[in-house]
Amino acid sequence: MSDQPTKDAMTPEERHRERMQRKKELVDRKIARATIDRGVLVVNTGNGKGKSSSGFGMLARSLGHGFKCGVVQFIKGTFSTGEEAFFRRLAGDQLDYYVMGEGFTWETQDKARDIAAAQAAWKIAAGMLADPAYDFVLLDELNIALVKQYVQLEQVLEAVAARPPRQHVVITGRGAPNGLIAVADTVTEMRVVKHAFEAGIKAQKGVEL
Amino acid sequence: MSDQPTKDAMTPEERHRERMQRKKELVDRKIARATIDRGVLVVNTGNGKGKSSSGFGMLARSLGHGFKCGVVQFIKGTFSTGEEAFFRRLAGDQLDYYVMGEGFTWETQDKARDIAAAQAAWKIAAGMLADPAYDFVLLDELNIALVKQYVQLEQVLEAVAARPPRQHVVITGRGAPNGLIAVADTVTEMRVVKHAFEAGIKAQKGVEL
Repeated sequence: MSDQPTKDAMTPEERHRERMQRKKELVDRKIARATIDRGVLVVNTGNGKGKSSSGFGMLARSLGHGFKCGVVQFIKGTFSTGEEAFFRRLAGDQLDYYVMGEGFTWETQDKARDIAAAQAAWKIAAGMLADPAYDFVLLDELNIALVKQYVQLEQVLEAVAARPPRQHVVITGRGAPNGLIAVADTVTEMRVVKHAFEAGIKAQKGVEL
Repeated sequence: MSDQPTKDAMTPEERHRERMQRKKELVDRKIARATIDRGVLVVNTGNGKGKSSSGFGMLARSLGHGFKCGVVQFIKGTFSTGEEAFFRRLAGDQLDYYVMGEGFTWETQDKARDIAAAQAAWKIAAGMLADPAYDFVLLDELNIALVKQYVQLEQVLEAVAARPPRQHVVITGRGAPNGLIAVADTVTEMRVVKHAFEAGIKAQKGVEL
């Protein structure tokens, strides 16, 4: 109770300042404790929107810092996508961009072809993970290929563990295997609260496409 | 039981094709039902990583489609961010980009200044929402300003409802108010499974910055 009179004498502005000062000290202490500086493995999973688009946002950040970047898209619909047009147009040789999947599995309806496409995509990806020239690697929808066992988890875990220590890797897609989550640094589950598609709204350019 | 013998006679490839054909019919029916074609309101919320980066990924998609885009960042740390460098460098007059916040509330420690900055940012945002020239508008971290009531929810709901029918709007930040979720078309909660920062890893350029 002893400091109560003092508190009462404070203006709302002073109280705000005091609260924010305490918060700043807390945040600063947390920042001071985070001293490890190395490449991270980020996994975006779950059924909600934002897994791939968040990966492409990080790609934009990385390009903004002048990083050499690699992208492999493991599954691609037959639609043309805005991000491909955009990043290809302007990134020049700062970016290597591969679209390997020939479409969703229910479009090709040919398992052997899907496996061959996934393996070809993985070969490119493994090359990037082994190459210290790449600062940032986005493996879009790799989780789908892992769930279907078109690419083996052990191959991915090995390549990720052996990668250059400063290289960031982002892996997206539903159903990230537990073994991948275990070795990742940052994992987010994108949870659907609601989705426009379920309300009868078409996939929209700039948002989904 | 009557078609059991036929199924048994199918090769694994035929069974895969049949399963995928059924899936394709299901997906195609869903796509056929989604006939509404208009601008959508997307909200990214929750405590996990990916809310802003997903917004910037959608911005890249929109720019890739040649859309006129607007970005207002309501809260900005003192660090320089890769996405700002990247998008400013190359988008030219296809993009208007405003960074309005002067830092996190615990950095400024000045509530009146924070409110003034949020209000100035909202004024720019409201102008974009009223302007049919903008196809895509990203209001990054607006939810934070709403939670703190530096911007009033009623103002935002009104501006969003009155916007041009083809305009897409993406609003990000923790703690999206229920009133905003109610009118949004697509809402994702980014849920933390784990975060590198909690394991003592510094915020990384290209990933967080």
